[in-house]
Amino acid sequence: MAEQAFVTLATNDNYARGAMVLGKSLRNHDTSKKLVALIGPEVSEPCQSVLRRIFDEVLVVDVLDSGDTAHLAMMKRPELGVTLTKLHCWTLTHFSKCVFMDADTMVLSNIDELFDREELSASPDPGWPDCFNSGVFVFRPSEETYAKLLEYCSEHGSFDGGDQGVLNGFFSDWATADISKHLPFIYNLSSVAIYTYLPAFKQFGQNAKVVHFLGKNKPWSYTYDPKSTQISGNVSDAAAHPSFLLDWWKLYSSTVVPALQEQFGDQPFHSGCVESQ
Amino acid sequence: MAEQAFVTLATNDNYARGAMVLGKSLRNHDTSKKLVALIGPEVSEPCQSVLRRIFDEVLVVDVLDSGDTAHLAMMKRPELGVTLTKLHCWTLTHFSKCVFMDADTMVLSNIDELFDREELSASPDPGWPDCFNSGVFVFRPSEETYAKLLEYCSEHGSFDGGDQGVLNGFFSDWATADISKHLPFIYNLSSVAIYTYLPAFKQFGQNAKVVHFLGKNKPWSYTYDPKSTQISGNVSDAAAHPSFLLDWWKLYSSTVVPALQEQFGDQPFHSGCVESQ
Ligand SMILES: O=c1ccn([C@@H]2O[C@H](COP(=O)(O)OP(=O)(O)O)[C@@H](O)[C@H]2O)c(=O)[nH]1
Ligand SMILES: O=c1ccn([C@@H]2O[C@H](COP(=O)(O)OP(=O)(O)O)[C@@H](O)[C@H]2O)c(=O)[nH]1
Ligand SMILES: [Mn+2]
Ligand SMILES: [Mn+2]
Repeated sequence: MAEQAFVTLATNDNYARGAMVLGKSLRNHDTSKKLVALIGPEVSEPCQSVLRRIFDEVLVVDVLDSGDTAHLAMMKRPELGVTLTKLHCWTLTHFSKCVFMDADTMVLSNIDELFDREELSASPDPGWPDCFNSGVFVFRPSEETYAKLLEYCSEHGSFDGGDQGVLNGFFSDWATADISKHLPFIYNLSSVAIYTYLPAFKQFGQNAKVVHFLGKNKPWSYTYDPKSTQISGNVSDAAAHPSFLLDWWKLYSSTVVPALQEQFGDQPFHSGCVESQ
Repeated sequence: MAEQAFVTLATNDNYARGAMVLGKSLRNHDTSKKLVALIGPEVSEPCQSVLRRIFDEVLVVDVLDSGDTAHLAMMKRPELGVTLTKLHCWTLTHFSKCVFMDADTMVLSNIDELFDREELSASPDPGWPDCFNSGVFVFRPSEETYAKLLEYCSEHGSFDGGDQGVLNGFFSDWATADISKHLPFIYNLSSVAIYTYLPAFKQFGQNAKVVHFLGKNKPWSYTYDPKSTQISGNVSDAAAHPSFLLDWWKLYSSTVVPALQEQFGDQPFHSGCVESQ
């Protein structure tokens, strides 16, 4: 049986920091699967090195350079650059099955059981719950599916400008066809849900297996003081998911920052950690 | 075959106005089903009269007076008064199947096809999408289910303090068991969804069949000028679903207000319609 993998994506150093935390969180919970990071060519060399220490495979995907139908799709829909990079995960045909996870997600327990599910399994999106959220999904790498996805992309674009719109357009029977393809919401718990229906979060939130820092403010948008373990920045928003955000920063500052320091050496870099006076 | 019915609930004159609009909207779209309104004893006599002109059955439900297990549940969980009144819909055993609809909903097309579904069918709740929203649901009246629901209510209460918490606790396999019990979101389109995922609303919103004015501000929280067809009040919120709100007010002012005027006669009453100077 061919291998299975968790796959993520980072097109720049900020998302790369997210990918590192995600990778560490998967390792910490003893995943038996391979870890793959797709990265864009703009990810710096030191970040690539850190990613290579955490992930089994780090693949640079350059849509502009690809010379294939992805390039053509890109010419037709230039706004879909990151989306087209994400779709590239379908080309990982040396794996029989994969779970894609956004770089702004973090696992809170072992989730290898997701590999029992079929393509395309995902959790509902809070907001428009007949759409799935494309931050966590089970898929089967396939050149054929990849080609169809690119074709769909070129012809229809994305109703929301991103990969979620494309994937929901393509896998359009998700809401109505097969309940086993509905991953429980605790596999993609987004901060949005915490404040829109707090009693449900209080009832079910302790079972969360994956937290997704969906939306404009990402964990790396804040700064953190490792000594006082305090988060600063636009904290009014952070207050919506304080303990998850703190978990992210604790993991990041304790395991990722030292690795970044080593790789960047004398070069200055933005760790996001500050020492309060 | 026993008859089928749409059922709603109003415990006071404000929600009664909502129920009237809902009833009118169902009639305007030529439903072939019966219409039933459960009301609390505080609904005024003129409002009861108007409800009787729109609905086939108007039943006063007084939980405090019921002398049955509902009364006992009420003693144990006094905060669940309205919820217990809603659960009363399961006692409508002269109907083989019913669709419950909140008084703050309005239909935009004929939805009789919902009677093809089984208990308990409902749309996902935006916010915590593994819960169903209890504003629209298909159920089978049954004294047995009613007794079990009351027992559940007394023992577990409601995790959100309302009927949605009770019903999701009781029908707890909704998220995972049977996709046919997932009503498409367009059968319970709540205003929340419009601003949390606007691109999806733009893509799918034109197919809306039921709009649900979920949340603190109800259509009757605003005022309306029929001449200029302008809504006033806390309009920042109204702006999130302007055309649906206007549809509600047009139906209300053209068909419900004249009926209320007739019934209230010389008595002053709050129509919510104002004439701008
Ligand atoms: O500039 C970008 C934007 C997005 N992404 C990747 O695409 C995913 C989806 O974007 P994002 O998480 O920002 O969207 P949201 O979940 O907030 O809708 C990210 O997690 C990353 O994996 C990326 O690598 N670079
Ligand atoms: O004081 C009340 C509160 C609620 N309801 C009924 O219970 C439903 C659910 O309450 P609401 O719609 O206010 O809750 P939301 O949908 O905003 O969560 C209403 O539509 C009414 O049918 C009622 O009759 N009187
Ligand atoms: Mn994301
Ligand atoms: Mn409601």
